[in-house]
Amino acid sequence: MQRHFDEELKQLKERTLTMGGMAEQAVGKAIKALVDRDSAMAESVIEEDALINGLEVEIEDTCLSLMARYAPEAKDLRTIAMVFKIVNDLERVGDQGVNISERTIDLLKYPLLKPLIDIPRMAVLAQRMLKDSLDAFVNNDAELAREVCRRDTEVDHLNDQVYHELLVYMTQDPKTITRALDLILVGRHIERVADHATNIAEDVYYLVKGMTIKHRLAGV
Amino acid sequence: MQRHFDEELKQLKERTLTMGGMAEQAVGKAIKALVDRDSAMAESVIEEDALINGLEVEIEDTCLSLMARYAPEAKDLRTIAMVFKIVNDLERVGDQGVNISERTIDLLKYPLLKPLIDIPRMAVLAQRMLKDSLDAFVNNDAELAREVCRRDTEVDHLNDQVYHELLVYMTQDPKTITRALDLILVGRHIERVADHATNIAEDVYYLVKGMTIKHRLAGV
Repeated sequence: MQRHFDEELKQLKERTLTMGGMAEQAVGKAIKALVDRDSAMAESVIEEDALINGLEVEIEDTCLSLMARYAPEAKDLRTIAMVFKIVNDLERVGDQGVNISERTIDLLKYPLLKPLIDIPRMAVLAQRMLKDSLDAFVNNDAELAREVCRRDTEVDHLNDQVYHELLVYMTQDPKTITRALDLILVGRHIERVADHATNIAEDVYYLVKGMTIKHRLAGV
Repeated sequence: MQRHFDEELKQLKERTLTMGGMAEQAVGKAIKALVDRDSAMAESVIEEDALINGLEVEIEDTCLSLMARYAPEAKDLRTIAMVFKIVNDLERVGDQGVNISERTIDLLKYPLLKPLIDIPRMAVLAQRMLKDSLDAFVNNDAELAREVCRRDTEVDHLNDQVYHELLVYMTQDPKTITRALDLILVGRHIERVADHATNIAEDVYYLVKGMTIKHRLAGV
């Protein structure tokens, strides 16, 4: 019985990693489409979001099925509950990929405002945070989880920089307003990806340490 | 045993409603602070968010404790799993109250840009959606849940209107840019409250109908 359960739990974690990879890729592709001004790629991110959504439903169902069939206790129960929360965050990361792609499609109506430097950098940081939060999950690595939480301020800081730089564009030339606004929103969408990674990392830390640190890690 | 479980499940739902009321109130107070230009009220929303976060942790722990002690099956298990998801949405609604309050504190540095009409209207709609999604949950009301999902487009529509109106201000007078941008972000925060209400309503519909409608309701 326990052996079957362990095997199914392992598969559940693998599916969660698969979903994490898809969500990360959605963000990566959305930013690549923005940088390369590739509307077909932006469209494909929007279309493929249905796959991420479908995987969330599948994983949730598996979680409930595992709980109903094995009535797991303590640590195992917490792990399943955490998967339940993690896929919720991942689904919303996928949505951020869609949001970025929608902004990109809007931006492609106009000439390039400026070469994009900080936005792709922010995206790389946020994607890395997401990947590391999931690695921390599968490896029960509390230290990595805590480090992901710390990195969130770096993304916030870059986003403030992006915001203020674009504000200057808008103020100096009203013709740039629509584009600058789109890019400000892209910055916020990436910031939210980092927030979701932080949520996951908080949950992992909680799971590994067996205590509630959520809403207390903000200052670490 | 079942009687004890039923009693605890009832209490769990009541705590969830309490948390829902607090999250709804955070948004209501944040908008009132914005309209009345009341920085002390905006500050209080930010401070009180810790209470909402604390309640999320408490309710999550109760969910896990119920699952561990009673190993509930089928419908009961789904109900607890849904509470687990709902409090996640409610916690993020509280965060939107904080975000709106931060924008308000920024806006109070400058004179009023324009009388606020559509933003408070949007907020009332979003708060009502949140309340109804929770009522649908406690009353197992699939019809109300479906109706909440439908109302989401109304909020999206109002938000587009707010966005385009503020864009005109920005374009015509660069001195309005910072304030218009703050108000555009407030609009998006309210839109996200409506999205969270929609998430909850989708989950409730799923729970009541015992099937997966999530990610399929968008077009209803």
